Amino acid sequence: MAKMTPRTLSGFMELLPAPQQQMERIMEVLRTTYARYGFTPLDTPVIESSEVLLAKGGGETEKQIYRFSKGDADLSLRFDLTVPLAKYVALHYNDLSFPFRRYQIGKVYRGERAQRGRFREFYQADIDIIGDGKLDIANEAEIPAIIYQTFTALGLHRFQIRVNNRKILNGFYAMQELQEKSGDIMRTVDKLDKIGAEKVGRLLVDDIGLTAEQAEEILTFIAISGTNEEVLAALEGYAGRHETFDQGLSELRTVVKYLGAFGVPEANFAVDLTIARGLDYYTGTVYETTLLDHPEIGSVCSGGRYDNLAEFYTDRQLPGVGISIGLTRLFYVLGEQKMLNPALPTAPADVLILPMTEDLSPAITLATALRQAGIRTQLYTEQKKFKAKMNYADKLGVPYVVFLGEDEINANIVACKDMLTGEQTKLGFDETLARIRAGLAEKNAGTVILEK
Amino acid sequence: MAKMTPRTLSGFMELLPAPQQQMERIMEVLRTTYARYGFTPLDTPVIESSEVLLAKGGGETEKQIYRFSKGDADLSLRFDLTVPLAKYVALHYNDLSFPFRRYQIGKVYRGERAQRGRFREFYQADIDIIGDGKLDIANEAEIPAIIYQTFTALGLHRFQIRVNNRKILNGFYAMQELQEKSGDIMRTVDKLDKIGAEKVGRLLVDDIGLTAEQAEEILTFIAISGTNEEVLAALEGYAGRHETFDQGLSELRTVVKYLGAFGVPEANFAVDLTIARGLDYYTGTVYETTLLDHPEIGSVCSGGRYDNLAEFYTDRQLPGVGISIGLTRLFYVLGEQKMLNPALPTAPADVLILPMTEDLSPAITLATALRQAGIRTQLYTEQKKFKAKMNYADKLGVPYVVFLGEDEINANIVACKDMLTGEQTKLGFDETLARIRAGLAEKNAGTVILEK
Repeated sequence: MAKMTPRTLSGFMELLPAPQQQMERIMEVLRTTYARYGFTPLDTPVIESSEVLLAKGGGETEKQIYRFSKGDADLSLRFDLTVPLAKYVALHYNDLSFPFRRYQIGKVYRGERAQRGRFREFYQADIDIIGDGKLDIANEAEIPAIIYQTFTALGLHRFQIRVNNRKILNGFYAMQELQEKSGDIMRTVDKLDKIGAEKVGRLLVDDIGLTAEQAEEILTFIAISGTNEEVLAALEGYAGRHETFDQGLSELRTVVKYLGAFGVPEANFAVDLTIARGLDYYTGTVYETTLLDHPEIGSVCSGGRYDNLAEFYTDRQLPGVGISIGLTRLFYVLGEQKMLNPALPTAPADVLILPMTEDLSPAITLATALRQAGIRTQLYTEQKKFKAKMNYADKLGVPYVVFLGEDEINANIVACKDMLTGEQTKLGFDETLARIRAGLAEKNAGTVILEK
Repeated sequence: MAKMTPRTLSGFMELLPAPQQQMERIMEVLRTTYARYGFTPLDTPVIESSEVLLAKGGGETEKQIYRFSKGDADLSLRFDLTVPLAKYVALHYNDLSFPFRRYQIGKVYRGERAQRGRFREFYQADIDIIGDGKLDIANEAEIPAIIYQTFTALGLHRFQIRVNNRKILNGFYAMQELQEKSGDIMRTVDKLDKIGAEKVGRLLVDDIGLTAEQAEEILTFIAISGTNEEVLAALEGYAGRHETFDQGLSELRTVVKYLGAFGVPEANFAVDLTIARGLDYYTGTVYETTLLDHPEIGSVCSGGRYDNLAEFYTDRQLPGVGISIGLTRLFYVLGEQKMLNPALPTAPADVLILPMTEDLSPAITLATALRQAGIRTQLYTEQKKFKAKMNYADKLGVPYVVFLGEDEINANIVACKDMLTGEQTKLGFDETLARIRAGLAEKNAGTVILEK
């Protein structure tokens, strides 16, 4: 028979078993952390009606969308988890309680040009808090705590949550009577890291048409830095001149004030006036998170406050605040950087039982007992040479191999080999179980990400 | 602005938060159980190249497939998890160790005519064990143990795993020299439950063209019933007449022999000669699982042994055995039958903190401490009347509400109300935490499914 050469589409991540186990650990950390902050899991369809999904219309994203017909239905694959959330909240409004806090870890689709580290199918891990009409600023203060806890639980320490408030920026530009140009200005200022202050200043004058004084004023403003208290003190110098600015400053003060109570160390948090996060959607606090040793990756967790989640579906005012982790890309980068902890077990089982008797009943009974005790156990029952069986255990990285022959069965003991140390014990079931449990607790103690 | 009416496509399950929590519990049980038997999690793309996915070609399924173009690529959404597994194993053969045991819980897509309880996007939860060239019969004996453990862990007890062996059927028909008609015969015999033995006998004669004696012989054979030992003893009467039959009988004996050691009670297992599971794919042991009180649902977990997983992608012989749970449909049916345990908490948080002071710092500090202790905690910070806050807690079904006012802060105690009993305590943090932990252990002790 002619064979079809198997292949996986480019831009689609398909992991081997060991890295998949690492990915599962990361997802488990995200689920656990998000749940601990009172977010409920949601799962919305991957396919939506095109007219519903694209109600907002236009934009760069639309070209990338996987859109197709089935029968007479015009369908699209979701390209983020925010639009499905907006649809969900508008559709199920009467069944939900507000503030509505949900997390969703799901695949989204964008038909981008394929290139290294770019994916067409990728996981996003989102949390959002949606209010009905209003949403207290305390929710915006809580977000850095969730980011901090998530990254810390994954094993990262050298990261910084950078925070700004769009009202401060908007208010500042309004003071300069530059509201109309604020979009262009922010886009230019965004290049600061790449091209430096001097070139940004020149672009502001030459391309955007500001006066030299205005450009100077802006560069002075975004150059404000120091500790959080120092930045806030400097911002205080602009207070009282524009209502929006004052409101933004007050919100930023509240966010900074509650940091300590939320358990976020100063070292992992910085007020950063250069952060803007797009132009229209966000209206208050905005967040970016960078890995200090890998600035080239860009932000690994971003988001902010918005005033109108579902304006394309409902007249109701549904303000919210949310963040998103591009999980597939993050996982890819961590792998490239060799930051995934190789010491954590990735084998499908913790114990591999090698039966040495023809009748498998004693080995099966042992496997059943281990499984009932919660130990991930595999029975190896293929007819292979001993060496091939040990190679199998080695290749999978199984932590413990148990041998069960006539001698062990008659003596009611278990021969158990620690595959890392090579140490072999011959003990009763309970002692063997205790040893395996203690060993596994130790082997699984590390975090999934390791900083070098 | 004109609004787009939000809607979710028909045939796509989108759950409200409380049932979603129940679904998450079920998935967690499946993941944990599958892992305990040494299966590794896999996650393959939802989209595959059409020529790869449809290499087998033809069939009823093809019409239902979501197939579309993007650029010049011809793409399809996966319609099961078996074809992607075949592709995966063929593609990554050199990186895998055999037997390769994987589980996958993922969404699949079939554009079926929409009707109640039928879904176009649905979860399958599959396990498969793939051998390289050979695969020992012990693996086929292990499958009922996994089914038993999975359903028991979910809370089901009144179910039966029904097992047959295709070699017994094929051998039996070969004895009657009815090999060519075996497909037609099995399809007719499949109607036994619906139309009864007499009508099946008549169809075998009138439509399939058997002699009255042949029909009688078949009806006698499939009527064999009783305990497993009785059925095996009756089958022994046919032994020695055809090699395939004898091999099937030997395999079935092995499967039955190891049941006890695998921890499967006789009450949950039955040899059933009427089970056939399709016609071509399966070659050995086949499985169906029925809920004794809900035979109308049909099989909720089915599968079997096959000889050639990836014959469309590789010349390698890759035999396997696997089972699949149609999770979305099962969840739907359980909901319809009111079998989802309403006593288990479905709230996003276990504790809702209501701060009674303007400065939220003490409440935030308390929330941070509870979260660090592993308690799912939400801070309620909206400006609402007390009654509205309590309504919110009630509506979500939050188990504990904590009040934190000046008095409590000054006395360094926590006021905590058990929302189910109404009991309120004023204790220190550690005592409150211990009480919440004990209460949650009790509230979460039940299984997610309840039989009536």
